[in-house]
Amino acid sequence: MMTSFKPSIIVHGGAGPIKDDSLAARLEGCKAAALVGWKILEQGGLALDAAEAAVVVLEDDPVFNAGTGSTLNSLGQVEMDAAIMEGHSLRAGAVATVTGVKNPIRLARRVMEDGRHVLLAGEGARLFARQIGFPEYPPEALIVDRERKRWEQKHGTVGCVAFDSDGRLAVATSTGGIFDKLPGRVGDSPLIGCGTYADEYGAASCTGQGEAIMRVVLAKSVVDLLKAGIDPKSAAEQSIALLAEKTASTGGVIVIDRHGRIGFTRNTTHMPVCWMMSPGHVELNS
Amino acid sequence: MMTSFKPSIIVHGGAGPIKDDSLAARLEGCKAAALVGWKILEQGGLALDAAEAAVVVLEDDPVFNAGTGSTLNSLGQVEMDAAIMEGHSLRAGAVATVTGVKNPIRLARRVMEDGRHVLLAGEGARLFARQIGFPEYPPEALIVDRERKRWEQKHGTVGCVAFDSDGRLAVATSTGGIFDKLPGRVGDSPLIGCGTYADEYGAASCTGQGEAIMRVVLAKSVVDLLKAGIDPKSAAEQSIALLAEKTASTGGVIVIDRHGRIGFTRNTTHMPVCWMMSPGHVELNS
Repeated sequence: MMTSFKPSIIVHGGAGPIKDDSLAARLEGCKAAALVGWKILEQGGLALDAAEAAVVVLEDDPVFNAGTGSTLNSLGQVEMDAAIMEGHSLRAGAVATVTGVKNPIRLARRVMEDGRHVLLAGEGARLFARQIGFPEYPPEALIVDRERKRWEQKHGTVGCVAFDSDGRLAVATSTGGIFDKLPGRVGDSPLIGCGTYADEYGAASCTGQGEAIMRVVLAKSVVDLLKAGIDPKSAAEQSIALLAEKTASTGGVIVIDRHGRIGFTRNTTHMPVCWMMSPGHVELNS
Repeated sequence: MMTSFKPSIIVHGGAGPIKDDSLAARLEGCKAAALVGWKILEQGGLALDAAEAAVVVLEDDPVFNAGTGSTLNSLGQVEMDAAIMEGHSLRAGAVATVTGVKNPIRLARRVMEDGRHVLLAGEGARLFARQIGFPEYPPEALIVDRERKRWEQKHGTVGCVAFDSDGRLAVATSTGGIFDKLPGRVGDSPLIGCGTYADEYGAASCTGQGEAIMRVVLAKSVVDLLKAGIDPKSAAEQSIALLAEKTASTGGVIVIDRHGRIGFTRNTTHMPVCWMMSPGHVELNS
């Protein structure tokens, strides 16, 4: 008989200043996502499925900068990045600068399952989506009025890390990127090791200033700290301290280690997070 | 007065089986590239300029799978990836799935100098090239007869790591990717931490099965071994052993540490490399 583990899940809704009155809505959105993921874990499902399902909820919620509600690039278009990775197998899939799909995280999962490649970008990612029968989704439908009116810079990414009852770890990250970005800009989210990473020791999803997160390969750095025996909370804190020290930048990270223990931190003013480690106990932080 | 360091440079022409009679030409190409980079270092130039210049030589040599001579994707098109990174500053620039430029590594350098983003993909990268006045280069001109006729799978990437007389490290990597890849496929080369990485402790450029290299974040792993005090040769060997163990895949890596010491290894049958640590002493290995 297999040892059964106690599942855990953590979701974030992006690090950065939250200037508008959307904080309550963001926390609600994180809670809804965590509950959907938790239900899968509770029934003995895969961490991978839980992480994907939670991120789909966040992508579909227009309050978040991912999927529907994504920020616009300098040409007024939505180009989205997403990645998913499973810890024990190191399998990973990602898409970058993709449009014409409703849920980039689902497409990233299909890139992973397909197995030929890890990362598909731009028109190629869209073509792959069409070839595997993914429904075309009009790019305009991803744009909500709030984004059309927005003229301040927007960071923000959503992510989920999950640990299932078989002790498997998975991570999923999705984003619309940064406001007014150049067309073709790829941030840290879809890059394995930068915004998203999972191995046998832990899994992490990052958010914040993507270009800086890439330069320190943040998600892999967090997981390497877990491997070195650091607890998840300290690993999160040390890695964000490293980000600040090396790049003078801001961000946040959520992490779960191979024992199912959760950690998160940010050096921004806000990062809505929601986590669950037992049924009915939903914990929130912002 | 600043301490002056003894420069060093190493160049590779891709890991993998070399079935045709091109090995001599590949070694010659590596030598030509190393000499161009060395000349810059010898005159007190930047490691960054040396790495870029060496990779330009490799991109322009049709024997290598980078720039002119790049392999074709499943639609018969060239889509190229490249990245450049400077160790002491952690500045980096990269392009993915780009066509219509002669030298992707030069475009990656311009992405770095521009500073807004680290990675631009596809049409966005091409648009950026046009906006900064990069000459349009007909995509057909990148395709050589050999590639039109090729029906076996081709791996292969070129790379250079350089250490200058001010003790600065830099790395540059460029590739046409893998034969028959899906359009939009991004390999490890342009991904900071995966195929390309540099920090204050060392710099590394990887080649081989890109999807596997991404899953173990190979270049960052090598540099982390240097940080832990491992010598460059052992760091290269340990990281390729890790790649094999975790992913059952093959590849190679070149590396220089912060003392200018060189290391390289491969678990493929071939990887043409050329390195120099003093004037006139050109060393070759395949």
